[in-house]
Amino acid sequence: MVHTPTLTYTTLDNMLGSQVFVKAESLQHTGSFKFRGATNAVMQIAGSGASGVCTVSSGNHAQALARAAAESGIPAAVLMPEDSPQVKQKATASYGADIELYDRYSKPQDIAGEEFAKKTGYDFVSPYDDERVIAGAGTVTLEALQDLQGLDVLVVPIGGGGLTSGALLAARELSLSLKVIGVEARESKVWTKSVAQGRRVQIPVPRTIADGQQLSRPGVNTFEIVQRLGASIVCVTEKEILKSLVFLYERCKLVAEPSGAVALAALLARRVDVQDKRVGVILSGGNIGIDRLESLLQQR
Amino acid sequence: MVHTPTLTYTTLDNMLGSQVFVKAESLQHTGSFKFRGATNAVMQIAGSGASGVCTVSSGNHAQALARAAAESGIPAAVLMPEDSPQVKQKATASYGADIELYDRYSKPQDIAGEEFAKKTGYDFVSPYDDERVIAGAGTVTLEALQDLQGLDVLVVPIGGGGLTSGALLAARELSLSLKVIGVEARESKVWTKSVAQGRRVQIPVPRTIADGQQLSRPGVNTFEIVQRLGASIVCVTEKEILKSLVFLYERCKLVAEPSGAVALAALLARRVDVQDKRVGVILSGGNIGIDRLESLLQQR
Repeated sequence: MVHTPTLTYTTLDNMLGSQVFVKAESLQHTGSFKFRGATNAVMQIAGSGASGVCTVSSGNHAQALARAAAESGIPAAVLMPEDSPQVKQKATASYGADIELYDRYSKPQDIAGEEFAKKTGYDFVSPYDDERVIAGAGTVTLEALQDLQGLDVLVVPIGGGGLTSGALLAARELSLSLKVIGVEARESKVWTKSVAQGRRVQIPVPRTIADGQQLSRPGVNTFEIVQRLGASIVCVTEKEILKSLVFLYERCKLVAEPSGAVALAALLARRVDVQDKRVGVILSGGNIGIDRLESLLQQR
Repeated sequence: MVHTPTLTYTTLDNMLGSQVFVKAESLQHTGSFKFRGATNAVMQIAGSGASGVCTVSSGNHAQALARAAAESGIPAAVLMPEDSPQVKQKATASYGADIELYDRYSKPQDIAGEEFAKKTGYDFVSPYDDERVIAGAGTVTLEALQDLQGLDVLVVPIGGGGLTSGALLAARELSLSLKVIGVEARESKVWTKSVAQGRRVQIPVPRTIADGQQLSRPGVNTFEIVQRLGASIVCVTEKEILKSLVFLYERCKLVAEPSGAVALAALLARRVDVQDKRVGVILSGGNIGIDRLESLLQQR
């Protein structure tokens, strides 16, 4: 695993009046934090005599699981949405996984995943709701807390909820009074609604540029952890996500995919009060083709 | 100073049949390795009672010197080419330096710099030929050699020659048989010609997208060091530079400006034989605006 760097920027600190640390999980193997959880799951499964692993994922977990399986020498099969980014489909295939496509707007991801697992006969590894995956995702926060003293706030993209749940568990283990904030696309609001209503709300698959957040409901385990340990949820607009992606490119010299840029977007749009605080921000992934970047920029 | 990460990529290793380590100086303060040399020079000058520092630079050294001066509390004045990237001019101004513009195609950089130094009355810090700047640039290689055991080859962008000279000096200090390769834009070839002829050849300011390499002749000190300690010089085309910049974005998740991408370009274009070798590649800077990226991509 790459112990990813936490980077600081004078300009950003001056803009926000706080000390900001950007944890660049884009520099993790396979370009996102997902490799941590996938590796943890695959290492445990590979020793158990399973015939292979499978999953359903819009891309980052797909790549991560495919590579983790290849390294452990077991087969992987992945169900991906037809409209998931080309660069993610290609990368997954490059690690030798079998890929099948489906229409994510006509079938919920969890149901599609269950059917796919039955069909393949492989062990299913959920992109976010598997406890081994959550534990792996938690190591992002463990590393950040190792590297940075006295962090007040940690701002995290929330899609399936693995990264946020992992952050909450890591902070609790270390008995820290760290405030964890999950950021989602306003076009989704599935976490905002679910937390407000105290139950896993189901919505139509949201249309957002943050393709890692196109989920119709929170995970069972991740929702339970988020509720029990208490993360705040904040929303950002499509424009704010894009602005953050450009800021990360120009000022931070980091490649972010839209879902990876949402946490910093919340800071730049002043949706989280971080004045005089020490703030960690997770850039969760950088899997974006240059053609997709170009077409996103044309939407500005 | 940021101890910048050296990153590895399975895809790259498989493509080239070697072990490649990318040293991301784009993640250095001010977005390039130049902050090392500028800081070293300014720290020595600030204690000497000088009234300020000045330089002539297309941008990365300008930003670096401006910030180093601001941190030491002394004034800085910078002469920049009119057609240097906007993002570099803005960043330099943001650190509080006085900026003056000139036409780089009608006056050689070294002469323009001499005149500017007389006018300002400040201590002149050459972007590459100052020994304090060369020593600072050498710390990139020192860090790489600390982090990586048994490197066979180090591939480095060569513009003024500070980074290459620094690399050669660092390798000599550690008594290593490291092969150092400087890469320049084929549209320039000023180093290729100078090394071949054994003297500092003067050419018209080259037109290349690698704006950090638009120099009409090598530095006096840097050329002497390159000759004496022996770096090989390799050229890359404009297309190869752009391809490398895109590869760095998509596969390495790193932001590179064109001059910063030339070293990897030489590897991707197979202009350096690295089969079965351990190879360090320096990505020297990432100062590029998203608008410039877009317009470069349209040239593809």
